Amino acid sequence: MARPTPLSGFPEWLPAERIVEQHVLDSIRATFELHGFASVETRAVEPLDQLLRKGEIDKEVYVLRRLQAADSDNDSGLGLHFDLTVPFARYVLENAGHLEFPFRRYQIQKAWRGERPQEGRYREFVQADIDVVDRDTLPFHYEVELPLVVGEALGRLPIPPVTIHVNNRRLAEGFFRGVGADDPSLVLRSVDKLDKIGPEKVAELLQAEAGLSEAAAKACLDFASICTPDSSFADQVRALGVSDPLLDQGLDELVRVVDAAAEQAPGLMVADLKIARGLDYYTGTVYETLLEGAEGLGSISSGGRYDALASDGRTTYPGVGISIGVTRILSRVLGHNLVEASRAVPTCVLVAVADEAHRRRSISIARSLRARGIACEVSPSAAKYGKQIRYADRRGIPFVWFPADPADPASTDSVKDIRSGDQAAADASVWSPPAVDLRPSVRRTEPDPTKEQHL
Amino acid sequence: MARPTPLSGFPEWLPAERIVEQHVLDSIRATFELHGFASVETRAVEPLDQLLRKGEIDKEVYVLRRLQAADSDNDSGLGLHFDLTVPFARYVLENAGHLEFPFRRYQIQKAWRGERPQEGRYREFVQADIDVVDRDTLPFHYEVELPLVVGEALGRLPIPPVTIHVNNRRLAEGFFRGVGADDPSLVLRSVDKLDKIGPEKVAELLQAEAGLSEAAAKACLDFASICTPDSSFADQVRALGVSDPLLDQGLDELVRVVDAAAEQAPGLMVADLKIARGLDYYTGTVYETLLEGAEGLGSISSGGRYDALASDGRTTYPGVGISIGVTRILSRVLGHNLVEASRAVPTCVLVAVADEAHRRRSISIARSLRARGIACEVSPSAAKYGKQIRYADRRGIPFVWFPADPADPASTDSVKDIRSGDQAAADASVWSPPAVDLRPSVRRTEPDPTKEQHL
Repeated sequence: MARPTPLSGFPEWLPAERIVEQHVLDSIRATFELHGFASVETRAVEPLDQLLRKGEIDKEVYVLRRLQAADSDNDSGLGLHFDLTVPFARYVLENAGHLEFPFRRYQIQKAWRGERPQEGRYREFVQADIDVVDRDTLPFHYEVELPLVVGEALGRLPIPPVTIHVNNRRLAEGFFRGVGADDPSLVLRSVDKLDKIGPEKVAELLQAEAGLSEAAAKACLDFASICTPDSSFADQVRALGVSDPLLDQGLDELVRVVDAAAEQAPGLMVADLKIARGLDYYTGTVYETLLEGAEGLGSISSGGRYDALASDGRTTYPGVGISIGVTRILSRVLGHNLVEASRAVPTCVLVAVADEAHRRRSISIARSLRARGIACEVSPSAAKYGKQIRYADRRGIPFVWFPADPADPASTDSVKDIRSGDQAAADASVWSPPAVDLRPSVRRTEPDPTKEQHL
Repeated sequence: MARPTPLSGFPEWLPAERIVEQHVLDSIRATFELHGFASVETRAVEPLDQLLRKGEIDKEVYVLRRLQAADSDNDSGLGLHFDLTVPFARYVLENAGHLEFPFRRYQIQKAWRGERPQEGRYREFVQADIDVVDRDTLPFHYEVELPLVVGEALGRLPIPPVTIHVNNRRLAEGFFRGVGADDPSLVLRSVDKLDKIGPEKVAELLQAEAGLSEAAAKACLDFASICTPDSSFADQVRALGVSDPLLDQGLDELVRVVDAAAEQAPGLMVADLKIARGLDYYTGTVYETLLEGAEGLGSISSGGRYDALASDGRTTYPGVGISIGVTRILSRVLGHNLVEASRAVPTCVLVAVADEAHRRRSISIARSLRARGIACEVSPSAAKYGKQIRYADRRGIPFVWFPADPADPASTDSVKDIRSGDQAAADASVWSPPAVDLRPSVRRTEPDPTKEQHL
């Protein structure tokens, strides 16, 4: 077969890049678990009617058909999930009798969309979600907590700093109602286009489609332009002179989110009143996240509060959730060489083989090292030591272990740090590498000052 | 929406079961990495022509179609992979210029098959594979090494003991040739049916389809009945009086595998000359693995040596690989309650909230505990302490932390082990739980002697 070529929209990593991805996924998981979120994994497929409930993304779903099905019209009725929220809602309903509420879960899985690939948009991608879901009612404090958990998770990654932009649907809806909008969701949808079409076009839309007066449209634009790193946005909103009970509740809630962030994670969040989040089901706080220097990439982590994540007719399950776009982040930092792994393999020590007759001796050394958690492999061949060292060097394996010469009773094992060339006698039952070398490490690279960095 | 029901063949786990699955996957990964295998993850889809190359499993492939495609005949040309070997072979060819050979990789991912679900067979399942692949030639010693790595990985899991059954294609082919078979693969295919149809029917097949004499058919059955925990199988084979150069090579190789196992992992392997492995591409050692007490489940881990994992016309990539059927194992041990997690959440400590005005104090305690790696969550509400304790109890959270009474300057924080009821004063900046309670643990359950166990 000829050499295959990559499939557009389905990113895959080389081993050293995969080590970065594993580091990122392990780190996110560790943060989520520190905060008591339980892991859930759902099947890759959902019934199509579930996937199409929201109506908006039907075009992007991959439908499955068994090849053996006699007729190609004979779809299985199943599609690949395009996010982790729809499957989670189904999982909650299906297992409600076995879950404890409020239920804190995280879910790190691939999702698929058949859309046109471009930077930041893939046909297969990894999402890392946290949600808290409760029965009937959900305390507001989770809307404060979740972005702090996500901020902590992102802050531990070897990526540039992030800013979480926060808004509140009640605040926006109250304001739009207060200026006379009959259908606040129409206003929201227009405001959502600010980044794409600019304020003038949005003002036109607000008058033409949402039926606002010119003054009301201007007030909405003024409202949407408010963005503060603290609770001073509240005074700016009040200065616009609009009043509405929902607006007051939304202001209060957003102040609580921003104040908590200022106290617990200074610099992490801003109140940004143009944040709309396209999806209709959000009802409270909404979140979007920008990566410093890569704002054009779009949000790398988004979510919000929804009063009805799921409902079986008798019970409604409100929730709040945020999703981290792991593939979007990784493609960016790997594609721009902003991060690197210290080596391409887990191996810390290559145990050399003097000659094939003594391979067993090397295997025994390796076993002794592994018993103490030191990853190692035995050289593939008893080639000249120079060649065995090159085997290690090409993979970034830091140490090569040389067994004692069996023909010389006075000789001992020795271990060589092939980066420095230092070599010393060693005993496999007690030797340990420096902690920093035990596992591959991942770090942000220093920007090369001679090259312009376009993150 | 009505309460959804599970999809047959797509197993999903409740949170406590998922903790068992995570433990199993983490443990397998740790063993693979200790042995220097690098992680690779491939996309879920492959071009259909790749998936159908082997010809045998075309009926089971799920084909993808974008819903927006105008015509339902309009398949994407992509299918979900049904194993991890086909995608890995493609990955090796695609990235050969960026990989170092011999390349040791592990891959833990889901795969999909549209076949009829039954115990041990699923439509979505997790496999954990290791392979070593080289360019042009691959040293034999990897055929000795890989089953030992897999045996070590399985031996660390909270499951019953396993036995790896080993055979060698050269040995079998040489023997079958030596008794006069023109096409040893026909003999192999008949012998592969021993477990299903029994020796008499196989003897008939060997004469009718492989064209063997009655005596030759009997010799093949005698050969296939040999099964020894050590290298004594070699004498039994020689006693059958058949000679062939390939047989000699195969005998020598299989002795090396079994001898190494007897030395390094006594009791792990048996030479079992009826093991055939259906797939045509194996050319050397082949492996199947049975779980004690669950032999009827079939092999939980299989693989072998192949001289041509992949080829681009100029370069051929030989390899040896073994795949662990994680879902098959998990479904069995979870379905039969042979294993359990100590709790259903990662949380070690629930920090109680005395009243909502002091939630911030509880958040600060939780942060202090997390800074030292102790997973905790803050109580969802400032309910009576009894109710907060029940919140912890229902999830198996072992400790509840009570903040000092802000109205009483003499009071201090205290922590309660809700299993024993022991409560003591504690300081969140230094307190640690017993190591065994820090994370959820997973253990084999004691069989209940009053109940008959049908594993």
